Amino acid sequence: MTQACRRVAEAVAADTLWDRLGTLAAIGATPAGGVDRQALTAGDAEARRALLAWAAAAGLAASQDRAGNLFFRRSGAEDTAPVLTGSHLDTQPDGGRFDGAYGVVAGLAVLEALERAGVRTRRPVELAVWNNEEGCRFAPGAMGSAAFAGRLDLAAVLGTTDRDGVTLGAALDALFAAFPEVPMRSGESPPVHAFVEVHIEQGPVLEQAGRTIGIVTGIQGVRWFEVTVTGAPGHAGTTPRSARRDALLPAVALIAELDGLCRDATDTTRFTVGRIAAEPGSVNAIPGRVVFTIDLRHPDEAELDRLEDAVRRVCGPAGGAGAVAVEVRRTQAIAPTAFPSWLTGMVERHARGLDLPVLALPSGAFHDSLNLAAVCPTAMVFVPCREGISHNPAESATPGDLAAGARVLAATLAELAGPLAE
Amino acid sequence: MTQACRRVAEAVAADTLWDRLGTLAAIGATPAGGVDRQALTAGDAEARRALLAWAAAAGLAASQDRAGNLFFRRSGAEDTAPVLTGSHLDTQPDGGRFDGAYGVVAGLAVLEALERAGVRTRRPVELAVWNNEEGCRFAPGAMGSAAFAGRLDLAAVLGTTDRDGVTLGAALDALFAAFPEVPMRSGESPPVHAFVEVHIEQGPVLEQAGRTIGIVTGIQGVRWFEVTVTGAPGHAGTTPRSARRDALLPAVALIAELDGLCRDATDTTRFTVGRIAAEPGSVNAIPGRVVFTIDLRHPDEAELDRLEDAVRRVCGPAGGAGAVAVEVRRTQAIAPTAFPSWLTGMVERHARGLDLPVLALPSGAFHDSLNLAAVCPTAMVFVPCREGISHNPAESATPGDLAAGARVLAATLAELAGPLAE
Repeated sequence: MTQACRRVAEAVAADTLWDRLGTLAAIGATPAGGVDRQALTAGDAEARRALLAWAAAAGLAASQDRAGNLFFRRSGAEDTAPVLTGSHLDTQPDGGRFDGAYGVVAGLAVLEALERAGVRTRRPVELAVWNNEEGCRFAPGAMGSAAFAGRLDLAAVLGTTDRDGVTLGAALDALFAAFPEVPMRSGESPPVHAFVEVHIEQGPVLEQAGRTIGIVTGIQGVRWFEVTVTGAPGHAGTTPRSARRDALLPAVALIAELDGLCRDATDTTRFTVGRIAAEPGSVNAIPGRVVFTIDLRHPDEAELDRLEDAVRRVCGPAGGAGAVAVEVRRTQAIAPTAFPSWLTGMVERHARGLDLPVLALPSGAFHDSLNLAAVCPTAMVFVPCREGISHNPAESATPGDLAAGARVLAATLAELAGPLAE
Repeated sequence: MTQACRRVAEAVAADTLWDRLGTLAAIGATPAGGVDRQALTAGDAEARRALLAWAAAAGLAASQDRAGNLFFRRSGAEDTAPVLTGSHLDTQPDGGRFDGAYGVVAGLAVLEALERAGVRTRRPVELAVWNNEEGCRFAPGAMGSAAFAGRLDLAAVLGTTDRDGVTLGAALDALFAAFPEVPMRSGESPPVHAFVEVHIEQGPVLEQAGRTIGIVTGIQGVRWFEVTVTGAPGHAGTTPRSARRDALLPAVALIAELDGLCRDATDTTRFTVGRIAAEPGSVNAIPGRVVFTIDLRHPDEAELDRLEDAVRRVCGPAGGAGAVAVEVRRTQAIAPTAFPSWLTGMVERHARGLDLPVLALPSGAFHDSLNLAAVCPTAMVFVPCREGISHNPAESATPGDLAAGARVLAATLAELAGPLAE
């Protein structure tokens, strides 16, 4: 690690970072101790206002784009493609205080640390606050970063409606009206040299392994399926087993078989049946129809193909008279993303340079990084969260781990931006 | 079969019976071809009015009791305990045209047939229309017959409230006000010599066996359970299998194991899981809690005890760290009822005397007969219904089978009432 990178890492103000997370957590605070600060609500605007004030005090230039993303820039010696970091300020309706907000305040802490350390860089360094990562009011999630990366059409994003028929465009106009002082970017998104995001793991792996820094190798792919088993309803009391076409018992057997197929020696495959419903759904009615979902994840696309084949084979149409019918529908497919090894290697080198114990792991959840990876070299840094709990008021992380993650981010961004000799 | 019994059976007016079922089906008819005529609605009153008119034309004496049961009496030579038949006029919200209504119009047809055949009896013969058998608006079902049999306290029945807080007593007062001409019975229910109810099977057994008359041996017992499996919720993407406490996979294994335990060589045990729900219930959330129901039925109480023991053993608290917890709660238990063999034998003898193919079977569903069996010798006669479908607009039975069941009922009631020599 160069002296410049170390100086920037050490200049990260850990106490300020923690205090700002507390300030943000109070915006949309719920009685249960969580945060409800959904995208494009008054809480979202209030959080943006707090950030604008902190950034203004730090002398950073703010701007925003038509998709509702907010940017803060520290200039470089050259007006070239910036090094970007960032995350999101919106939360789930019953979310916690670290998901998203941590990556934003950590990014701000890095911009401030560069200044405090007196390190000038060749490239500009920017912090992005991506709009609507959670996708609660307006689906899907990670919309702002998808628009920035050109993976979603801006017109489609703006036309998205919420449950009440309000368009995202209209909600955004209200937000923009609250910040007339922030310049609006025009035209296409500018090129980005590299993007690095720091985030709580939202899983239990780092905590259980006793490591502080997760070197994220990529974002695993996901496929969703909906399986429908159709039999025939009937009266639980009057219909003998031999005359039944109970849809639940075969559904239960399918789930057990699929679970067995998804076991692997390295505990990499993620298989989850999160929803199941039997119809008509009375205690004394034989289920005539059962629908269940499958969430299947793996970092390797070929393995996802193999697993999908297995799902379709196991859930193939059953033969024989009186049997049930089984139908599989794929409802979502997102390909895995592998982060470039030169960049994950750089993150790891800085973490080790700061004497932080590391673990390489894929991201199990989606992040804005998934979109950025389509347009520039991208990496992520994870820090542990208690018991892997996220999207929950109980979401928790330690000040020490959060500061460590911000320091690794600081050193990495400094190297990417090219520190200039003093 | 005596000549008198045969004459009464043959005097049953099959066409009138069928036409009256059509008339009743029009009261509360649904667009889907079903019937929505719930207890104590305007439709219930209209159906009672139709019955009162038919009974008046036949010269039968009407009366009603405080629980809302309606009675029609053909006097006997002696004023002694009557022979009783009957069923109910209320339906499920999406019910069919035969469940309940058939037993009522068949009973009326028998009273008319006795008259038409010129058969006087020693005992009175009565038709009962039991109030609120389905228990949809006011739960539980079979309330009128339970009050008649002293198995439910009248005050408790009258105090039952619907979803809007209206008491059954208030709803009944409105009904009584519509029929001021019908005398109200006072005091306790009079003794009954015997009760015989005719009903569609509501199951597929007679149809599949090709038999016209079901000799009902009794009503099987039922036990309901609610099983709760508690693990821990988590993110489907970020939580490896080894760190999960998924509640669904053990629930699925329990259901499969219980199903295996409930298989028997004679296909007598009825095991149904009608409801299952996973919480929080998102595609990408590991279920932290799964609740499912069990409906378990068998005609033998000792076998029900044995099966309940097995359920509790299989769903016993699981040991080991990180494991899920399983809890079983019994939510209902109704003991089996065996009808007296002298009475089921009498029904069978008359069916065979009428050259009708018979099959002995237990009733899988509950009926008002369950309550009457507590106070007098009771039997039931089943006729086939198409594909065992009931509580459904598709409920269907043939005019021939319905007439056959009414003839068996006629001969049986005539014998029980003691036909007098002419």
